[in-house]
Amino acid sequence: MVSYPPPDNEHVDEQMIKMEVNLDDISGEWLGYVMEVMLEAGANDVFYTPIYMKKNRPGILLQLLCPQKDMEKMKEILFRETTTFGIRYYPLTVHRMERKFVTVQTEWGASVTVKQGIYHGEVFQCSPEFEDCKAIAEEFGVPLKQVYEGVWRGME
Amino acid sequence: MVSYPPPDNEHVDEQMIKMEVNLDDISGEWLGYVMEVMLEAGANDVFYTPIYMKKNRPGILLQLLCPQKDMEKMKEILFRETTTFGIRYYPLTVHRMERKFVTVQTEWGASVTVKQGIYHGEVFQCSPEFEDCKAIAEEFGVPLKQVYEGVWRGME
Amino acid sequence: MVSYPPPDNEHVDEQMIKMEVNLDDISGEWLGYVMEVMLEAGANDVFYTPIYMKKNRPGILLQLLCPQKDMEKMKEILFRETTTFGIRYYPLTVHRMERKFVTVQTEWGASVTVKQGIYHGEVFQCSPEFEDCKAIAEEFGVPLKQVYEGVWRGME
Amino acid sequence: MVSYPPPDNEHVDEQMIKMEVNLDDISGEWLGYVMEVMLEAGANDVFYTPIYMKKNRPGILLQLLCPQKDMEKMKEILFRETTTFGIRYYPLTVHRMERKFVTVQTEWGASVTVKQGIYHGEVFQCSPEFEDCKAIAEEFGVPLKQVYEGVWRGME
Amino acid sequence: MVSYPPPDNEHVDEQMIKMEVNLDDISGEWLGYVMEVMLEAGANDVFYTPIYMKKNRPGILLQLLCPQKDMEKMKEILFRETTTFGIRYYPLTVHRMERKFVTVQTEWGASVTVKQGIYHGEVFQCSPEFEDCKAIAEEFGVPLKQVYEGVWRGME
Amino acid sequence: MVSYPPPDNEHVDEQMIKMEVNLDDISGEWLGYVMEVMLEAGANDVFYTPIYMKKNRPGILLQLLCPQKDMEKMKEILFRETTTFGIRYYPLTVHRMERKFVTVQTEWGASVTVKQGIYHGEVFQCSPEFEDCKAIAEEFGVPLKQVYEGVWRGME
Repeated sequence: MVSYPPPDNEHVDEQMIKMEVNLDDISGEWLGYVMEVMLEAGANDVFYTPIYMKKNRPGILLQLLCPQKDMEKMKEILFRETTTFGIRYYPLTVHRMERKFVTVQTEWGASVTVKQGIYHGEVFQCSPEFEDCKAIAEEFGVPLKQVYEGVWRGME
Repeated sequence: MVSYPPPDNEHVDEQMIKMEVNLDDISGEWLGYVMEVMLEAGANDVFYTPIYMKKNRPGILLQLLCPQKDMEKMKEILFRETTTFGIRYYPLTVHRMERKFVTVQTEWGASVTVKQGIYHGEVFQCSPEFEDCKAIAEEFGVPLKQVYEGVWRGME
Repeated sequence: MVSYPPPDNEHVDEQMIKMEVNLDDISGEWLGYVMEVMLEAGANDVFYTPIYMKKNRPGILLQLLCPQKDMEKMKEILFRETTTFGIRYYPLTVHRMERKFVTVQTEWGASVTVKQGIYHGEVFQCSPEFEDCKAIAEEFGVPLKQVYEGVWRGME
Repeated sequence: MVSYPPPDNEHVDEQMIKMEVNLDDISGEWLGYVMEVMLEAGANDVFYTPIYMKKNRPGILLQLLCPQKDMEKMKEILFRETTTFGIRYYPLTVHRMERKFVTVQTEWGASVTVKQGIYHGEVFQCSPEFEDCKAIAEEFGVPLKQVYEGVWRGME
Repeated sequence: MVSYPPPDNEHVDEQMIKMEVNLDDISGEWLGYVMEVMLEAGANDVFYTPIYMKKNRPGILLQLLCPQKDMEKMKEILFRETTTFGIRYYPLTVHRMERKFVTVQTEWGASVTVKQGIYHGEVFQCSPEFEDCKAIAEEFGVPLKQVYEGVWRGME
Repeated sequence: MVSYPPPDNEHVDEQMIKMEVNLDDISGEWLGYVMEVMLEAGANDVFYTPIYMKKNRPGILLQLLCPQKDMEKMKEILFRETTTFGIRYYPLTVHRMERKFVTVQTEWGASVTVKQGIYHGEVFQCSPEFEDCKAIAEEFGVPLKQVYEGVWRGME
């Protein structure tokens, strides 16, 4: 299934949807899997919140973000993979920064991609890519926090 | 107070409202009661989320779903039963599956209603009614999980 | 099943046990029921905490308090009613205040029991009984918060 | 920075916005500070919810309420102070009670402001101002709960 | 690193330790990784709870279970991979059921291992292995919930 | 009230106590204050967890850490400032790293104290003091995250 990520320039996207489902008759084991399935199917984001439901039930609020054009596809996956009988949703707008990718050389030899967030032409965010840092931590046997510190030092 | 549940056929309801209230000056003891009151007054759903509020306060976000036509009634109950000075709300759409009820005979003699969720003509959900299963668990002294397993076996 | 509540004088109980179970393969619907079953079986307290478990699973930590002498009974209920393969536990001490019960007359005619907590001979807590206040709220159609305010005024 | 609080009469405000940001690459230490910054900058409310994000990450959902006219200012602060690359938002309506302030004399000599919430001309809420009560608790060395009880008794 | 899982017979293990760490200066991104590292290093279990810490900080309580003999190894990993300056711990006992593994043939052809939990000689738990069910869901393109229902039907 | 912080050398402290209280009849407003009071009275740490209690009540689990010698003092504060009728507690051990404080010069002129955590003679943690960083953020009008990045660069 092909999913088109948002463009890299700064933009305001008024075609997004948030879907919500309350779940009290599904296990955590299944929900861990359901999140993966929905992200692979192209959801922009999926996340869970613990909620207190009637009859003393610890439940989960599932929230899913997707473009309006994918709404029908996402509804079907939600109905298929969860136990819900209804899905609620409402439109929302997303303001996304411009994104640029730079490369930082680390003391371990390997390089790390740093994602920059640019707002109105100015760099606001500098975020080392997690998977790159994790790979260095595992290959060189260093704590992950040390890898990030190394990348920050290398950014100067 | 009469409450009209949504119809049983598959439909998209664009007349729903979500209300939200942040609470940091009410006890959990009262909130347990407030949930009951609002469900009895006809709210489609009421649930709580733990939130972090200013000044180190562990608060509760109350969310309530109801038809737009019940909005004034629900506002009054919220203002009366909680401690809030304001209620925020926004419209949302709910897509509800067709619902059908079938009966399953169990090994304990008693029968259990199973609610089916039907999406575009196909059965997606099969959900044994909790209160039926609980009644069997209590009457026959079996664990609730065993009752559900018995119902699933009986569904074939 | 008979359950002996702790005595009403101030005392330090060194014979208590806390049991803990992590659950990721049980629904909230069942857990609401399980809490009731365990409280009826004589547990001093049962409560749930949302936890983050491996493989992205939103789980629940169940905690149960009981006297050491009830440990075997509680273990069996936990194994029977939940889906866990293991129970962990450790001893703890509980310091309980002296408890006294006084009666407060309310403006609605009905009286409310107020539980006092006495520490080293001094009254530290004054807690109107929830079920009494709830009964007045329901019978006289007043908000629960107003009943409590009435009781506090009547306590002088 | 000047912030105009909502007026004190009962009104329905249809010009509010809720902004939301998911955060998994920022520490709690920073988030405690960020909440203060945004409240000082004039946000009507800011609160956090624990969420379960992909890859086993315990994250935070930040929610911020502000008038639509402050949206650009708030966006810039969110981008500057948090680590997010995007902000989502949607309009909502707030129904606010009339607010009136009365003064209650306490047994400690100091007076406390009580905020009243008035809905359709009737008093629904009576809320002692926290900062006043806290000041008495600290000055006179009494438990905060006792100060509140004193204020409620004084309200008659 | 070799890790010895607990034996499969029913037993009471009095040599377990629970370690706890409060974290407010580490991101969720890192914590997702830390959980994996500790489970691979042989921790019996690792889980997170959202907590409210001083100065309005949303923090995380990390809890780790391990045999007492692995305590030094686990301490070092916790200090290395998290940002904490201290680790607290206390001994606890674990009562583990006997575990037996049976195989269930499914309608998709593939078989699933079912883990049985046996307490005092009686089967209390029947738990289909998650990874087996997930593999079927992915290979045959069926919802995970349907795979579990199929296994339960096949268990008769 | 004088409170003796733990010593700065690496040590294992076997004289600590964890106290726990379940609260369902106290507001978040009060709990924010109670945390402050207990930290000022010398508790090593105080934190809250959202819990699900009986009768659909969203409650709070308060946990407090202190030396065994302060137990009576802490009990009295807990009984005085919260609404609980009982306190449970159990001993635990804390392994604390050696702590050293170094000074880092920042690009803004002001210096920041960095707390080092040393385990078995090796530096494991480098933690810029939050209050120092916050002061720079406020004085120079820079985002807090940028101050921390500046400190990390200055640590080389």
